[in-house]
Amino acid sequence: MRTVTVELGARGYPILLGRGASTGAAGLAALRDVVGGRRCLLVADRTVGALHAAGWRQALLAAGAAGCERTEFPAGEGSKTLATLAELYGVAARAGLDRSGVAVALGGGVTGDLTGFFAATWMRGIPFVQAPTSLLALVDSSVGGKTGVDLPEGKNLVGAFHQPRLVVGDLAWLDTLPEGELRNGLAEVVKYGAGLEAAFFADLERDAAALLARDPVVVERVVARCCEIKAAVVAEDERECEGGRRALLNYGHTFGHALETLTGYAGFRHGEAVAVGMVLAASLAVRLGLCPAEVVPRTTALLHRFGLPTRLPADPALTPDAMLEVMGRDKKTRAGGLRLVLPTALGATALVAVTDVAAVRATLEVARGKP
Amino acid sequence: MRTVTVELGARGYPILLGRGASTGAAGLAALRDVVGGRRCLLVADRTVGALHAAGWRQALLAAGAAGCERTEFPAGEGSKTLATLAELYGVAARAGLDRSGVAVALGGGVTGDLTGFFAATWMRGIPFVQAPTSLLALVDSSVGGKTGVDLPEGKNLVGAFHQPRLVVGDLAWLDTLPEGELRNGLAEVVKYGAGLEAAFFADLERDAAALLARDPVVVERVVARCCEIKAAVVAEDERECEGGRRALLNYGHTFGHALETLTGYAGFRHGEAVAVGMVLAASLAVRLGLCPAEVVPRTTALLHRFGLPTRLPADPALTPDAMLEVMGRDKKTRAGGLRLVLPTALGATALVAVTDVAAVRATLEVARGKP
Repeated sequence: MRTVTVELGARGYPILLGRGASTGAAGLAALRDVVGGRRCLLVADRTVGALHAAGWRQALLAAGAAGCERTEFPAGEGSKTLATLAELYGVAARAGLDRSGVAVALGGGVTGDLTGFFAATWMRGIPFVQAPTSLLALVDSSVGGKTGVDLPEGKNLVGAFHQPRLVVGDLAWLDTLPEGELRNGLAEVVKYGAGLEAAFFADLERDAAALLARDPVVVERVVARCCEIKAAVVAEDERECEGGRRALLNYGHTFGHALETLTGYAGFRHGEAVAVGMVLAASLAVRLGLCPAEVVPRTTALLHRFGLPTRLPADPALTPDAMLEVMGRDKKTRAGGLRLVLPTALGATALVAVTDVAAVRATLEVARGKP
Repeated sequence: MRTVTVELGARGYPILLGRGASTGAAGLAALRDVVGGRRCLLVADRTVGALHAAGWRQALLAAGAAGCERTEFPAGEGSKTLATLAELYGVAARAGLDRSGVAVALGGGVTGDLTGFFAATWMRGIPFVQAPTSLLALVDSSVGGKTGVDLPEGKNLVGAFHQPRLVVGDLAWLDTLPEGELRNGLAEVVKYGAGLEAAFFADLERDAAALLARDPVVVERVVARCCEIKAAVVAEDERECEGGRRALLNYGHTFGHALETLTGYAGFRHGEAVAVGMVLAASLAVRLGLCPAEVVPRTTALLHRFGLPTRLPADPALTPDAMLEVMGRDKKTRAGGLRLVLPTALGATALVAVTDVAAVRATLEVARGKP
């Protein structure tokens, strides 16, 4: 068991990591501080709910929760909508969940983002607990307080910053994670190395096989390192302020979001889209002379070892024009200018205002249509 | 022209009050600080939009806004829903409104609450400006950062705290306010006196006729006094914390919200419901021995002078049981107990945990069914 702390003063919180974190004494004690004597609304998708909700609900009750309603929704990014959110509001209203209630997200990024946004906006904000069951949620979406839902026009356009009170990452939950979802999370793991810490990138090159084999020691170490990197960035720049470091966590995400949007959130897993996005961003950075050429092959090679895509498919919807149009709606965009997180070296990134649209177009064109 | 400041450090903001505040030099200068060089989304209901949106849009452009989209929705509390909110999100997405955009609410409480919640959640939060055109919005809902929408199960169940950057209260806008809407606002004006400041209550008893005649000097003085009282409470207790003073602004509101909910938000204007609610709360306080008897007749008399109701109508939907059930879902409720703002004297209130349900029932029964 390890604890990583997100240092945000009164809004700070611990991330408990380890096999059995949800049932051990330390986990229950931390949980008691948040849910003791309070009613919980436990939210999961149907897949994760069937696997882990009953056990986790028992843990919440063992930690002193005064009650625990459960609600579930269909698994997948297609559920991260205003419609599912409206259903959560209805469940909470009918259950009489008041301001003393606690929302608990059990699942991956979709569940955490949706439940977190519910918690941010139910009665103008109630506490919430993240219980990430996917690698992606463990290393990324459960930490930092970004919550929200998608619109047909784009991902995460609606949302709020709302920090959880506690993150419980029971690594035994990863045992039930499908292989594709493990790879999905590994894209975000690579992002921490490629975007923020060269030494961690080198560790990943060394540990790739052990990670894929789910070696428990390596998994715990890697997850904890990702959480530490993210916690430090969030502590420094909670609200992704102008000029702050938090925007750098979006390495690969502007290209990736466009890819997800244009394929209707169905063609790519989030991590797969981010993997392609990082390679596109690195290729653009090299083309613009911002970054040494070696970044592209090293990033591509590690992503390949993790079974992740690194090119745009030959989908007629993915024209450079279509990609550029969606990228122009990205949240980092300010008054029309394209702003992208681009690498300046392996393990270093910067938020760059890109005016050379022709270079972006050429990068997209070159990356397209080959296997 | 007067300026009342809400002292909230980095989230503080000025409230500009006076006839011509939206077009004068001081107003434009303050507006320029918020909208200069930025794109605006101007939200109004159709009634207010037809009267004032074109002029206000010109003011925004004169203050240097880089553009100003307009959108309108049908007037009335029935529009304060997730459905209207979803329409605003769609408008913003199609307009390409990014994080550098500013939302501008022109109208009454419904418009301000809805637009404020849109601003709180669009791309995880963008700045917004309140331009209240009703007395109710001027003295209450435009100040303090409470934003949100209603659910079928209750009012304001979904929302966020999100402070405006600026409130522009052009008192000339009140010239087009229908008589019934003026009275609607006067209920909240009475609340500041009856609930928080006895001297102000006495001023209102003295100035009632001038207020109803919309004497500009009296209107400006009264609106400014209400904003000062509210600003002081909000500065002390921005987020309505446990034990804080902000909850006291809800005097009359728990009974009032139940009344609005049970009549489908159609039978009572918000202020009318709050007027009845204050009398119910005062009657209950007297019954519980918390408050001198004179509070009920003095409150009732002033509300009557303003043409406001003070009793429950003989509506079969408004049984004590039905009222109690809805009141149990109020946001001030914690884990089942009823908590009500009750007067302890004229001009003084306290948040009281009420366990004597029979007394509440008797108060509701007595107030019912007579003219």
